[in-house]
Formats: sequence, structure tokens, C-alpha cells
Amino acid sequence: MGYAIRARQLLTMPQEAPRLAEYGDGGEERDDAIVGLIEDGCVVVEGEEIAWVGPWEQRPKSARRGDMDVFETAVAMPGWIDCHTHAVFAGERSQEFAWRNAGKPYVEVLEEGGGILTTVEAVRQASGQELTDALVRRAFLSVRQGVTTLEVKSGYGLTTADEIKSLKAVQRAQKEVPCELVGCFLGAHAVPEEYRDRRKAYVDLVCEEMIPQVAKGGYAAYCDVFCDRGAFDAEEAERILRCGQEHGMVARIHADEITDAGGAMVAAKVGASSADHLEFVNQEGIEAMAAAGVVGVLMPAVNLFLGTIDHLAPARDLLNAGCEVALATDFNPGSAMTQDLGTILMLGCTLYKLTPGEALRSITAGAARALRRTDIGGLRAGARADVACFDVPHYRYLTYHFGQTHTEAVIYRGNFVYWTEEADVEE
Amino acid sequence: MGYAIRARQLLTMPQEAPRLAEYGDGGEERDDAIVGLIEDGCVVVEGEEIAWVGPWEQRPKSARRGDMDVFETAVAMPGWIDCHTHAVFAGERSQEFAWRNAGKPYVEVLEEGGGILTTVEAVRQASGQELTDALVRRAFLSVRQGVTTLEVKSGYGLTTADEIKSLKAVQRAQKEVPCELVGCFLGAHAVPEEYRDRRKAYVDLVCEEMIPQVAKGGYAAYCDVFCDRGAFDAEEAERILRCGQEHGMVARIHADEITDAGGAMVAAKVGASSADHLEFVNQEGIEAMAAAGVVGVLMPAVNLFLGTIDHLAPARDLLNAGCEVALATDFNPGSAMTQDLGTILMLGCTLYKLTPGEALRSITAGAARALRRTDIGGLRAGARADVACFDVPHYRYLTYHFGQTHTEAVIYRGNFVYWTEEADVEE
Ligand SMILES: [Zn+2]
Ligand SMILES: [Zn+2]
Repeated sequence: MGYAIRARQLLTMPQEAPRLAEYGDGGEERDDAIVGLIEDGCVVVEGEEIAWVGPWEQRPKSARRGDMDVFETAVAMPGWIDCHTHAVFAGERSQEFAWRNAGKPYVEVLEEGGGILTTVEAVRQASGQELTDALVRRAFLSVRQGVTTLEVKSGYGLTTADEIKSLKAVQRAQKEVPCELVGCFLGAHAVPEEYRDRRKAYVDLVCEEMIPQVAKGGYAAYCDVFCDRGAFDAEEAERILRCGQEHGMVARIHADEITDAGGAMVAAKVGASSADHLEFVNQEGIEAMAAAGVVGVLMPAVNLFLGTIDHLAPARDLLNAGCEVALATDFNPGSAMTQDLGTILMLGCTLYKLTPGEALRSITAGAARALRRTDIGGLRAGARADVACFDVPHYRYLTYHFGQTHTEAVIYRGNFVYWTEEADVEE
Repeated sequence: MGYAIRARQLLTMPQEAPRLAEYGDGGEERDDAIVGLIEDGCVVVEGEEIAWVGPWEQRPKSARRGDMDVFETAVAMPGWIDCHTHAVFAGERSQEFAWRNAGKPYVEVLEEGGGILTTVEAVRQASGQELTDALVRRAFLSVRQGVTTLEVKSGYGLTTADEIKSLKAVQRAQKEVPCELVGCFLGAHAVPEEYRDRRKAYVDLVCEEMIPQVAKGGYAAYCDVFCDRGAFDAEEAERILRCGQEHGMVARIHADEITDAGGAMVAAKVGASSADHLEFVNQEGIEAMAAAGVVGVLMPAVNLFLGTIDHLAPARDLLNAGCEVALATDFNPGSAMTQDLGTILMLGCTLYKLTPGEALRSITAGAARALRRTDIGGLRAGARADVACFDVPHYRYLTYHFGQTHTEAVIYRGNFVYWTEEADVEE
């Protein structure tokens, strides 16, 4: 018979928000519209789905009966979505982090065993079970923050077997964690050592062997590529993404992080669901993305971690052009060793000057759109019952008080999967 | 009969570290010397004190007996010290945070009810018990990270009664929390509304009424002042700090955060234990601080939170001049709404380019010196048995993987006051 959630502030996150660009000056009513605020709101959950959403006063008859459980909270919103992570990895790179901060040139870092290929080596050495176990631990940490959907990319295997090992680890971990894991194939993350100076041959391998096998095995529904200097150029990226699309995969792209390599244009051209990073995207690329409905996924922890805060992604330009924006952690051992979406929200506000509503929308509705999903990221009848509940005085507080979780309860597919001692949840 | 801690990496944090300036290029051995690393180290705890520190192989006979409990961990170091916080406050200022990010001019923010005086109003309205309860909750969160000493400033009361109410709340909270709370009197935090245009009269009140009463009541052993444009000038700061010193209080100062207001020079002149913030300190001030042994307390979360990362405190210049440096959160509702020292460590490395050893020293030995304390901040015989134990592969990992705690156990005055499920602690 279900149960109800009653929230002082219920953020529904409408799929079609009023154009964000019009709401960028911090005005509170505008922000309330962006998040679809209902004061004293109610969500009725039946099974794994949301049955009804609206003001508490107007709740349906079924929810007025005295025997329906009601969970009361301060702020409830769609479960958070971390739509860009590399969370299936082995090893760590704190030495490289220290070297970089000390100013060691990147070529020396590479020579002395730093860089992405260190992680590739560690992942190749790791067993599928080890990768699974590590991912399970990490997913639980995300859930505690309010995350109910966690995207996870491969891309540290760089052989057909090791890429599939990584994606299989995501699928095995799925059986053990109380959130959805969304696998994404990123075979073209870097050129592996054994293909150095034979990049074309590696792209052939990705297109002719990896993508067909990943698609056939059902290991990932998304295909991603790292398009930038030192990785793959725009032409190669387009070839890889189109190949993925021919195999039924949704295209995504690491675009224009280090240079203006034309990644945003590729995203628009092939109709990718998202273009991610975008520090060096140009105005033409932004407009092409907006026209093609490509979501801009921004990951400010990278700029902080790599010391590149002098060149940030143009968040406001993307919003003004009509792009949807998502924020994500980019959790990975090389450039963003964090799973902390709360700090990402704060960074979105202080570095990109997002409003609280824009920031919160970016990790729910925006992130869902980056994954081209309509069943998550918003609270509406028929959507999956993924709800994050927070003990905070106002929703904007979530973007402001960083470095600790404010989660009171997390509901995934209708089930309470995490709650604090203070939460009034019956076991 | 005590117990032993055995750590794969034991960081002793020697009081007189090799001059930090010589160790700033990230070299690992140099960093090991800064933290006083003992591989496979042992700490013997007896009662509330450390009885012995050294290599496990050389541990004393008492610790070789089979009936002595041994707690094994990966990395053990002195309990962390957050040496600059404003953790005794009421209310929150997320609206102001959003307004500032949206570019609202500060005068408008003030007019519409933002700014420090909002918090002053909330603290004046709050009961001593409310302030105590909030501080207790916050202190427990710090302890979970590894903090065993938390400095807490008054400064949101700005009347004699409300300043004493705040400092009394610190003393009452002390009875309920498993870490040391160090009260600091900051009556000269801002000029209260009722003294607008009568700053001299407020300074008189601070010197003639507040300081004598705080000293007499034993409410705080430290006296601090906010020396900057819009607050108190160098002359007033000197008068207040000397008055505090005459009443037996150690001087500290909020110096040169917004402008080069001469705060560092005042710190050196009066012999303050620390000068804090220092974004606009000049070279003369740095050299005077070094000569006078004034610790530079740096708080990078403020720059992130206020969007002022384009002007950072000159951490390396301070180290090169021979100053000890401490990092702290500055936890407060207006400019740094965070208690997360782990993120502060990361910011110390990426923004100030500290080495991992320098960063970790800054929240232990450096912070102890900022409080002019020798019984905490280092692991040596006779020191208070405050030990933080972490489940990490290398000590530098603590500066790298941010946004979550890595604490395995926290020992305060010889007692295990916090531990994770994974820790092998008998209840
Ligand atoms: Zn990425
Ligand atoms: Zn302060």
C-alpha cells in the first residue's frame, strides 16, 4: 500500500525547467522555480515507483488514511546522480599529486611512473573481484551523501579483456550496492603504452573489437572518448562515437579540457548526450551544443585538484546559450580524488557562480539528461522512487555547508537504503 | 599498565623540524624528515600520556610482554589541531552565500540582513545552552576526522555578557566532548551596530570591561582581534592585544586578510603567538613575523568560499622566511562554512603548493605552536596521548583523497574516543 514522504521543502526538479539563463541572478523565487519547489510537499511511493507528488494538503485519499506510514523530513529531492566518474580503478597516485604540486614537469612525472598509465597498469594487475570490491566500498560512500545513481566509466584497461573486466566489475558490484551503477565504455581514454606511435591501430582496436564485444555482451549502454591533445583528435573521436552509436550505444565525450580540440563540435555533430569538462570550449561549440541538446557536464574538483582554477569551464555561457548543465565529481585517482558531491555543489556556486537551485538541478535533472534518462532525476508520478532527504534549514544550505553530509535518509527504488540515527525510520 | 600503538608509518612531528624552507620541492626524504617519520613505529601510552616513542623493534620491555594490548594501524600521528575556528555560533547565512555568488554588492547584502551582524544578532538571541549544544555536535564531527584539539573563538556576542555567554558555552561543551576545546576571546571581531561611528568607545569597552572580566573569570587564555579595513586598525589592535597580555592572555590576530593593514607588524611587535589569514601581508611583515616567532595561520577555505582565490596568502614566502605555518578551517557561517580539515590539507597542497609533510605538520606541530602549546601536536614521551590513526597507504594520501574521512581511530588523553568498524578496538 506504499508510504508517504512529507517534506517542508520538496524539490521536484521539473524536466523542462524555465530556461536557466533567465534565473541567474540569485533571486529566490526564480531559484524556487528552477527546482520546482513545493512548500510542505508530499511524495507517495508505491513499490519501486512514485505514485503521486504534490502539496501535502492535496495528497490523495490513500495517503490520508491513518495506517499509511509517513516519513517526515526537512528537504526532499530526487536522489543525486553523479553522472561522470571513473570509480572502477585500482591503486592510487598521491605521489604524483605531491610531485605536481611541487612543480615537477609532467614529462618527469611520466618517466618516474606517474600519469594515467600507472592506473592502467594497476587495473590490469587487479582481479575482477578486487575491482568489484573497491567499487562496492566507494558506492556505499556515495549513497551516504544522497546518491542513488552512479555513473562509472571503464578506461583503465585499454585492452579488450581489461576493459570488459572493468565493466563486468561494475555489473557485479551492482548486485551488492543500494544504488544504480551506470557503466560507460571508455576504451578510448588514453593510448596504451603498447600502441604508442600507433594510435590509428588502437582506434581500430576500439572500433573493430572492443565496441562490438562490449555491445554484444551488454556491458555498457554508453560510449565515451577522451578528445584532447595527447589523447584522441576530433576525427578519431567522431569515428569512435559513431561506431558506438551503430552498436546502439549513447555517445558521450571528454571534450576540450586541456585545449580547444573541437570536442564540443563533435558532440553536437554526432548527437552526444553530453560533452564533459569544457574548460576550453569556444562559443561556436557552445552554440552547437545548445542546438543539438548536448548537456555540458562540468567538474570543478579537477580544476582545484590540478591547480587550474585560472581557466574554468564557462558555465554561465552554457546556461545562457540554453544548454542544460550537470555537475559531477569526475572521481578518479589522477585528477579528482574525491566522491564529495557536496563540495562540488559549493564549487559550482563559488567558481561557476551558479545559484543554489541551478547547482542542485545540475546533480539531478541535469545529470539525468546527461545520461538521457527520464525515469530518474525528478520527482513525478511514474518516476523511479529515488529520493534523498536532508536535515537542513533550506535547500540552498546544501550548497553552502560543505565537507560533511546532511543526509537524513536515502530511498532507492522505494526502499530506505540509508538513514541516520536522527531519522525516524522503522527497521 | 598502558598499551601500545604500532603503525606502519608513525609521524612524530618534531617540535624543531628542519627548516621547512629547505624541504619544499616535494622530495620524499625531505618530507619524511619534516614529519619525523618512523617506519614501523611504536607509541606506548600510559594513562593520559605518551610514555615512549620509537621503532617497534626497539620498544621497551614493558611493551614486549604478551599481555600488553597492541593497536595496529597504518598511519599514526598526533591528534589534529584545528587552531582557528568560530565554532560557537547560531544561525546560518546560506542566503548571503547565494547573494554573494550572484554578484550582489556587499552593501546591499548588509542592508538586506547579511553580514557578520546577522550572526551577532542570532548569538545574542540564543541561550547559552543552545550555543553549547550546537558546539557539542560540531566538536563530535571534528573528532571523527582525527581532531583532538579544537580552538573556538567568541566574537559574535559583542557585549560583555554575550561574549562571556559564548566563552562559557565553550567551557560547558568541554564537559561533553572527547577533545580539548580551546576558548579564545575575540570581542574585537567587529564593531557592533550600537557602536557604529563610536569605534573608540567600543575599544574602550573591550579593554576596560570585557578583557578584565574574561581574564578574571578564566574564560579564555587567548585574546584575538580582527585588524583590517572595516574592523580595527593597527593602533587599536595593538592596544587590545597589549591589554589582553597585561591580563595574562596570549595574543593572536586576524591580520591582513582584506588589505595590508599592518596586522602582521602588530603581531610581531606585541609578540603574538600567531597572525592569521595574511592574504595581503607584505614582505616586511613576513620578516618581522619570522624574527618574532609568530606562526602564520592560513585558511584557504575562505578564499574558495568567498571567491578570492586570485589572492592567496604567501605560504611559501612565510616558510622561506623561517615562519612556522599552520592551516586551519576558520569554520564560521560567513566565510568558511566547513569543518573539513581533510579538504584544507588538499587545498594547502594545491593552492599553497605545500608538500604533504608540510601540510600535515601544519595541522599538528604548526597548529600547536600557534596556540603556544608544547604538550600537543607531537608524539614524544611526556606529551599528551592524543593520537589520530588512519587507514591509508601512505601519509601523503591524507592530503590527496579529500571529501571523506580516513580515520581508523582517535585517541584523546590516552582513551579511544572514536573508531570505525574496521578498527580492532575492544570496547
Ligand atoms: Zn573523466
Ligand atoms: Zn577567523
